Amino acid sequence: MSTQIIQAKQGIITPEMHEVAYKEKVDADWLRNEIALGRIVIPKNINHNFPVRGIGKGLTTKINANIGTSEKHCDFTEEIKKMEIAVSYGADAIMDLSTGGNLHKILQQIISESSVMIGTVPIYGVATRLLSEGKKIAELNPEDLFNEIETQAQMGVDFMTLHCGVTQSSLSFLKNDERVCGIVSRGGALLKRWMVDNNKENPLYEQYDRILDICRKYDVTISLGDGLRPGCGADATDRGQIAELLILGELVDRAREKGVQVMVEGPGHMPLNQIETNMKLMKRLCHDAPFYVLGPLVTDSAPGYDHIVGAIGGTIAAIHGADFLCYVTPAEHLCLPNISDVKEGVMASKIAAHSADIVKGIDGSRERDYRISKARRNLDWETIFDNALDPALARKRKMESESSDEDHCTMCGNLCAVKNDKNS
Amino acid sequence: MSTQIIQAKQGIITPEMHEVAYKEKVDADWLRNEIALGRIVIPKNINHNFPVRGIGKGLTTKINANIGTSEKHCDFTEEIKKMEIAVSYGADAIMDLSTGGNLHKILQQIISESSVMIGTVPIYGVATRLLSEGKKIAELNPEDLFNEIETQAQMGVDFMTLHCGVTQSSLSFLKNDERVCGIVSRGGALLKRWMVDNNKENPLYEQYDRILDICRKYDVTISLGDGLRPGCGADATDRGQIAELLILGELVDRAREKGVQVMVEGPGHMPLNQIETNMKLMKRLCHDAPFYVLGPLVTDSAPGYDHIVGAIGGTIAAIHGADFLCYVTPAEHLCLPNISDVKEGVMASKIAAHSADIVKGIDGSRERDYRISKARRNLDWETIFDNALDPALARKRKMESESSDEDHCTMCGNLCAVKNDKNS
Repeated sequence: MSTQIIQAKQGIITPEMHEVAYKEKVDADWLRNEIALGRIVIPKNINHNFPVRGIGKGLTTKINANIGTSEKHCDFTEEIKKMEIAVSYGADAIMDLSTGGNLHKILQQIISESSVMIGTVPIYGVATRLLSEGKKIAELNPEDLFNEIETQAQMGVDFMTLHCGVTQSSLSFLKNDERVCGIVSRGGALLKRWMVDNNKENPLYEQYDRILDICRKYDVTISLGDGLRPGCGADATDRGQIAELLILGELVDRAREKGVQVMVEGPGHMPLNQIETNMKLMKRLCHDAPFYVLGPLVTDSAPGYDHIVGAIGGTIAAIHGADFLCYVTPAEHLCLPNISDVKEGVMASKIAAHSADIVKGIDGSRERDYRISKARRNLDWETIFDNALDPALARKRKMESESSDEDHCTMCGNLCAVKNDKNS
Repeated sequence: MSTQIIQAKQGIITPEMHEVAYKEKVDADWLRNEIALGRIVIPKNINHNFPVRGIGKGLTTKINANIGTSEKHCDFTEEIKKMEIAVSYGADAIMDLSTGGNLHKILQQIISESSVMIGTVPIYGVATRLLSEGKKIAELNPEDLFNEIETQAQMGVDFMTLHCGVTQSSLSFLKNDERVCGIVSRGGALLKRWMVDNNKENPLYEQYDRILDICRKYDVTISLGDGLRPGCGADATDRGQIAELLILGELVDRAREKGVQVMVEGPGHMPLNQIETNMKLMKRLCHDAPFYVLGPLVTDSAPGYDHIVGAIGGTIAAIHGADFLCYVTPAEHLCLPNISDVKEGVMASKIAAHSADIVKGIDGSRERDYRISKARRNLDWETIFDNALDPALARKRKMESESSDEDHCTMCGNLCAVKNDKNS
């Protein structure tokens, strides 16, 4: 068995490449070459069958929805329902971040019932078990971490977040007293704690080749986590963040050389005027690896509305290089998202991805807007509804208004600009 | 009685200027000079008393909420309630766009109960009465329009949208067959219809001096409407739009010369990568007049979520020069907004304004984010709630979760990055 990137380098156009090329309306051999160069990935574990999607250069901007139980809120059925809702509203990927209950059981269920790629953060499982046994993070055995990675790889996980760039070197640039928010990545904080308490190097960095061997075996795409990402606008683009990025860049090269697909994760919290610089810097330092961003959140002051804050930052990020947006829900920073939050988060990310794809000139994006615009001119409501990102909601709002059976709406009534303009 | 700009030119720092300078933490004489130059306005009719706010250069980005009855949905109490909700969530201005019921009665009520500046679009009232009498737009008597402007000015309206730039000249650049969506401004479409049917020039342009006389008398700030604004991404920055902008620029100069405060309205629908250019072009052509934008909406495909679409565009617009954002609600393009839509629209605009103010370095914006960020590091939930743009919602989400009484939240539980980072 071989990975997509190894086959691409060998000049082979795999069925997965054909499928992505067809969906994206791009040339299959162009796509193969981009995969060979590592600028596009197709996350798909050899043990997981589903309709694949590509992430990276020249393709539509993809979005991910995080689901998963937590210690205090643990209901398998609800998480499966969240996955279904997320996918039905357009999520291209699901990350299972469960930290409550039987983690392997829920992961297996999610993989088997999913119609999209599945991602995980393996250290969550290891740390959750450790804490449930009353142990400290310092007692984490690195072997358990590698075993978890291998187990999840065998189960069929398509991409894994691994915080390999949290090293003694990158941490040395991170003076916590200079940061307002310190480390806000769960994986990053766990690793730092282990490293400090044991005075050792990050095993995920030290034994990176071991990770590469596992990932190559199952064609797991590595998503290099940004454990030192800024947790507030004031910490954005600081030395700690960039020191980690330098290491991630080196790890991208090593993964590609070993025939492992790889993408890189990015911030986080960031004032809007820093986003373009960050996207360009990342693309340069990581040799055009696909970029997976969380947010970025352009203000810290809107808890309860972080899906909107993330949509603002995500649009700018995607225009300047981000290929994959992790959704942010209205529950961010407050609690575990519920089903309604999942829908709102997916829709906000979808709007960001689509708005960016219009600027990027991705095939189909401007055409969709054009169809709706033309329909607006013709007061052709059915075409508007059919082409809306959320057809059901658009239809519901119009149909429940007092003008449900009229060509204009209750906003303008007979002063409708479209009607008055056309009749003149 | 004199206007703010006339007094500013005379070197007088009015009580209103002192009030704005105090609120914005800027020097009063600097403010006076900017008002004299027309780069800042303080919309306040001499017949309307309320706590004033300034709009323009170096000040916090302001937001407006539209309310108003329509033919099909006409409930005074509901509109007053919308105004209260909008102001309580942070609207700096209210526009009464009523087109149903006794228009002067509701406007008078809104003016008397408002604690913020009030704007209107006088042609709506004239056209509404005309249509209710079974007449056609072509039959509109320009005298009725000027009478309406004078009546509303006397009633205490602080700023009025007047589509003076829809002229035979600017219309000549607008070939409807080349536009996907034609004219989407209600005022613009009404005027074009009248002009075409009567083969005459726009009276608001032809008799602009008459408008200036009325506005100077009551210190009404003119908001030069963009009747030819694009109604979809495909129409953005076309010749019709720019032709109108050239005229608006000339009208800005004439207003300033006559001692009338003036701002300019802008688009509309626009792909994100055109926003910066538009803001800079407008500021140049209109000699740095305060800019009031609707949206801009960066995609046409998200009816039901246009508050998010507008927040994306509004943030970029405000960073590049927009001073005043007209909110967009989830009901946009579908129906008249309800009370919940008004709240969602105000919050989305508030997020856009605040996110832009962080980039613009407006005093207090970064400080607010800093307080929340510091509180997050300290797991100090009360300080987070108190500084949130919507304290009640943030508090509700945390307090209704299973971790209501804990320092961490249900998202991460004991894997909380902040806790693990601090304890290490």
